[in-house]
Order: sequence, then structure tokens, then C-alpha cells
Amino acid sequence: MARSLAVEDGTVVFRRSDGTVLPLHPVWLRERSRESDEFDAGCRQRLYDPWRIETAIRIDGVDTLDDTTAEVRFSDGRAVRFLLDWLDGELDPADALPPKIPWTAATHAPNVAVLQVLDTPTGMTMFLDGFLRTGLGLIRECGNEPGSVLRVAERFGPVRVTNFGALFEVRTTEAPTDLAYTALALYAHTDNPYRRPIPGIQFLSCLVNDAEGGESTLVDGLAVAQSLRSDDPDAFAALTTTGIRYRYDGDGSVLEDVGRMIEVDEAGEIQRIRFNPRVEYVLPAPPAALAAFYRARAVFGARLGDPAFEIRLKLEPGDTLMFDNHRLAHGRTSFSAAGRRHLQGCYIEHDGPQSLYRAGRSAVR
Amino acid sequence: MARSLAVEDGTVVFRRSDGTVLPLHPVWLRERSRESDEFDAGCRQRLYDPWRIETAIRIDGVDTLDDTTAEVRFSDGRAVRFLLDWLDGELDPADALPPKIPWTAATHAPNVAVLQVLDTPTGMTMFLDGFLRTGLGLIRECGNEPGSVLRVAERFGPVRVTNFGALFEVRTTEAPTDLAYTALALYAHTDNPYRRPIPGIQFLSCLVNDAEGGESTLVDGLAVAQSLRSDDPDAFAALTTTGIRYRYDGDGSVLEDVGRMIEVDEAGEIQRIRFNPRVEYVLPAPPAALAAFYRARAVFGARLGDPAFEIRLKLEPGDTLMFDNHRLAHGRTSFSAAGRRHLQGCYIEHDGPQSLYRAGRSAVR
Repeated sequence: MARSLAVEDGTVVFRRSDGTVLPLHPVWLRERSRESDEFDAGCRQRLYDPWRIETAIRIDGVDTLDDTTAEVRFSDGRAVRFLLDWLDGELDPADALPPKIPWTAATHAPNVAVLQVLDTPTGMTMFLDGFLRTGLGLIRECGNEPGSVLRVAERFGPVRVTNFGALFEVRTTEAPTDLAYTALALYAHTDNPYRRPIPGIQFLSCLVNDAEGGESTLVDGLAVAQSLRSDDPDAFAALTTTGIRYRYDGDGSVLEDVGRMIEVDEAGEIQRIRFNPRVEYVLPAPPAALAAFYRARAVFGARLGDPAFEIRLKLEPGDTLMFDNHRLAHGRTSFSAAGRRHLQGCYIEHDGPQSLYRAGRSAVR
Repeated sequence: MARSLAVEDGTVVFRRSDGTVLPLHPVWLRERSRESDEFDAGCRQRLYDPWRIETAIRIDGVDTLDDTTAEVRFSDGRAVRFLLDWLDGELDPADALPPKIPWTAATHAPNVAVLQVLDTPTGMTMFLDGFLRTGLGLIRECGNEPGSVLRVAERFGPVRVTNFGALFEVRTTEAPTDLAYTALALYAHTDNPYRRPIPGIQFLSCLVNDAEGGESTLVDGLAVAQSLRSDDPDAFAALTTTGIRYRYDGDGSVLEDVGRMIEVDEAGEIQRIRFNPRVEYVLPAPPAALAAFYRARAVFGARLGDPAFEIRLKLEPGDTLMFDNHRLAHGRTSFSAAGRRHLQGCYIEHDGPQSLYRAGRSAVR
């Protein structure tokens, strides 16, 4: 059905391609002017402050110029042309990003690319599509020289430098004199829950992985949180309401943030998980409330390592993992044989890949 | 009054220095063990996963060793020593940061330091105290060579690089052929509301400011939002609930985020303002709801430039402004005389100054 803009019974209405008819507020339409003296096509910003538009502005009439364009006459004396296709898009409240699809060990669809494929717009957009849906991607043939993780990450967005520097080392050898560098398993966790803001996306590049074991573990916290919401709503409620102080104190830094293990927005949608048992401190609360929370935490913790949810993969030299640190928890299995395992990691923020995806999609259209 | 830890009627209770008596959940106490095999004093992290603690763990007894220390015997067989002073601090849910104090033109207390003073721990901590309270600071004698803004910012935390680079230029000359570089006034706004995450803190360093006019304007969005909440609650409600898409589209980047002009947490506390009329697009909504919003936006917009709230200062070469981009709106007045005005800006995140402040405070204690 053809799009159209018309005045009906004193109200301007837009008829969408799917046949729905939406009344429009005159200011909503007026402030979308793309006239060249009101909107800079280069920097794509308005050239005036829309909050100064007279809120009682009226529409005096609409003239359909052709199938694609209508001209609206406003009571401030301006006639403004609108492309109907573009206006249709403006009436769609959803972001153009693909939806997040929760996954389990049984339903996980691998998202793998070799680095060179990301040089092509289609290859990059397809990889990003998989990343935005699953929160995870594996990039192969990245090279295994020190620092290559930064060059891979910078294809997606500026590196988020922290007090640890631009990159961090995950160098694990069997040296039991130094507890921090044992070959112990590392349980599922999210990184840096004490930071403001929490780093959005993590990269881990493999330089060497000769050891037996030392597999990377990954679990979709969104899927785990959703499973709790449906089969243990009391646990879900406790985890979304109990305040936790996440704290890092070392090397002259004292980083703290208070949050929840499962964070939901006002519509109840799961926005983020924070799970890092080494640095979490439940705020003081009455023992009865804490009893409900501690039960819930034990269920959540166990499920984040449940083989029904967890996937494992062994990184090879030149492999880079990319995962959403607000959604996935990651860890590693222990390794017992002699051997070396050396990864390097860094962070970027969510807006980098999202911007790349949107720009890639609009280039394809 | 002396702190103490004791078992009373089968419950472990802590008597605080102010006389209040708090019952403690056994897990809450157990997971705060600082025993050397359970807590790494170097990296200050736990060496085990507390969600694995038996949630039904009991306390078999408490022995007071001296005025400072108690030893708790748990039903898992461990005896754990606690410093009572430290435990008292753990029972304080508040962050150690100073409170945010909203300010108006009449109540604003300037927070000014010369760069060299920040070399001293006391000077830095005092400046940060003022910054955390007011969201604003002015640092003088920073030098006016290009790039000095990065060196000033890096004293507080790692620079947040964006697709615009590490620093951005605010170079305004009277060249009417290029609209982006006119000497027009710039109304109060917050930067980059379309980014995920939105940059936390902005720095602006002045290299040259020969022009007449060109004063920097600053307004405490927290104070403005609070004023709306008290004298125009309908406007406050509309601004905290109406969804806005903030959008930047240029130079190959398509950045989008949906938020509110005033963002509150679940307790109703004002967390952030986003006000950038050039890049805001109200989501489609019924005209009646939008009418309430547009009225509210006009009130909010006008108040952000109201002399009762706004302060002005003229940056001199070598001056650096530092302000909270989630709280303050900033702008500039026009300038009409011939002259040069060249600023450079960059961003850091909130955790940098907060960490510095906490570390400085604990060093002083």
C-alpha cells in the first residue's frame, strides 16, 4: 500500500506501507525538517534548537507532490518537504540492530571468520550480525605476535584503556610459587564489574597454547538469567534486587561500583549480568533477605558452569575471541601437563561494532 | 562505645561504635574471611568462589581475642579472625565518595587549582573533592601547546578515545562560508548522548582566546532537574519517561542510543541528563503524550540557559575545564569581534577520578 501524509479531521496522519494509520504531533513533524537551512546534510545535525519550536504550532495543509514526497505547510509560515519512505522509517521505534538470541550448549550457532574476511564489507557485516545476536565471535588467522589483539580490536572500535593499560596478559605457566599464575581452572566470570563504566566487549588473542587442557569456557548469561526467570522466579527476583559492591583495590587504584548480579531495565528486560565471585561484596542486609539471595547466588553460580549452558573451545595461536562482557561469562579449564599458555586481552565499547554494523547495513541497502 | 562481635540467642550480632546492633548472616561473615589461604593480600581478591559456601553454614562460637580482633568458629571447621574496625566499615553501605551538591549561579563554589598543586596528594584530593561535589573544576597553568589537554586528562584517568580520535578541536574563527566554524553561540548541551557508553567526563583546554565574547557557559543539570521535580512535577515526569533516540550519522559512523532527557534510578535518584537538541529524535508516541513532553522540554531547555542557574567564565590560554558530562551542560556565548578562539577537548571515564579520590583518602587516613 502506498505511504501517504494527509490532514484528516484536523489532525495530520501518516498512512504506513503496512496500512496502519498514525496521528502525528505537529512538533514531531516540524522538528524533522531536512530543509537545508535547518539541517546540515554534511554533519547531519540540526541547525536550530527544537525545544524553541512553538509547542502550539499547527499544520495548515499537506500537499502531495508525487509518490515519494509530501510538503507540509506549518503555521510558522514554513513549508517543509518530507520523503515518505524516510518518514516511515522514523516511525519505527526499534533500533536497526539484530535481536539478541539467547543460546545454550545445544543451540549455540558458532560465529567464526578469518581476519581477512573482515576486510570485505559483507564479511564484516555478517560477522557483526552473528556477534550482535550471540554476543560472541571467533576470529582466526590474526597472527600471534604480541600486541596483535590491539590491531584486531581496533577494527571494531577504539580500545578502552584502563589502569591496567591498553592490553593485559593472561600468561599461565605451572609455577606454584606464584598463586596468580597457576594452571588452575578459572570459573565463569565477567570482567571488571567494579569499573564505571564496565568495559563492554572483551578480546582475547592466543599467542601460545601448548598446554593440555586450558580450554576457554563461555556461557550466555542472558540465557542463564532467562532460565532462572522462568523456572526459579524467586532466585531471579533476589539477583535483580540485592545490592552488591564490586571492588578492586590494588596498584594504587580503588575501583568500586554497586550493582546487581542480573540487571534489568524498567521494562524488566535483562540488560547485563555481573558475576565475579573474587571481587563481590554483598551490601549489609537483614539475614532473612540475604538467605534468599545466597540461595539464588548458589543456583546462578552453578548454572553458569552447567554443561547444558557452557561451550568450550581451545584457542589456537592466531585465534581471537570477541565477546560481550555485559552478557557472556567466560573462564578456562585447568591444565595439568607441562606447556605454555599465553593470551593477551583488551576491551572496546559497544558503540564501535554497533556503528560498524549500522553503517554496513545502510551501505548495502 | 567499643565494637564487639558476639552470639546472642543463636544469632551472631555486631555492635557498632555508634551503639547500633546488627544481626549478621553467617555466609555474609564467612565470605569476608581475610585468612591468607582464602584471600590474596597482594591482589586483594578472594581465592575461592563464595557462591560455593554452604548456605546453611552456622556459627559455632565467637572468641574475643582483644579490643581489635574477634575469632569466629564456623560449622565448616574454619576459625576466621576479623578486625572489628574493618568489619564496622563493611557494614556501611555508602560509597566513600563525597555527595553531589547541586548548585546554581548564586550557590556555585568555584573549584580551582593550578596544575602543579595536583602533584601533591593533598592538593589532588582537595581538587577531586570539589569536583565530585560540584561536577566541575578549573585547572590553571596547564600550558597552551597543542595536546596539553591529553596530558592534563591523563592525570585523572585513561583518555577515552572515540571515532573522533583521542582529542577534538574546538577552533572557532569568523568564517561564515563554513557553518560549522562560525562564531555563533552554542546553547547548553551534553556531549555524545548517542554513544554507548556516553563519555563520563570532559576536558576542554584553551590554547588561544583572543576574541571578544566566547565565554564558556556551564549549568548544573542536577540542580535544574531537581528544580523541575519540585516545581513542575508533570514536566519532570515527562522528561524521565519519554524515550528519545540520540543519533549521530557522519564520517562512516552511525551512533545511536535511546534514553531519556533526565534519567533516574529505581529509587528515583537523578543519575544523568542528556540534552543535545541537535541530535535528538523523540520516539513516535501518541500526540497527547508528546504534547506533555514538548511542553516539558521547552521548560527544561529554557531553564538550562537561565542566568539563575548558569555560570560563565572566559577561559585563558593554559586553562583547562573539567566537568561531568552526565551532570553538567556546557556551551559558549557568541563572539563578534575579530580574534581567535582555539580549544582542544577529550574525555575520560568516571572511575579514574573516583579511584584517585578513594586512594588519596585512604592514604591520608
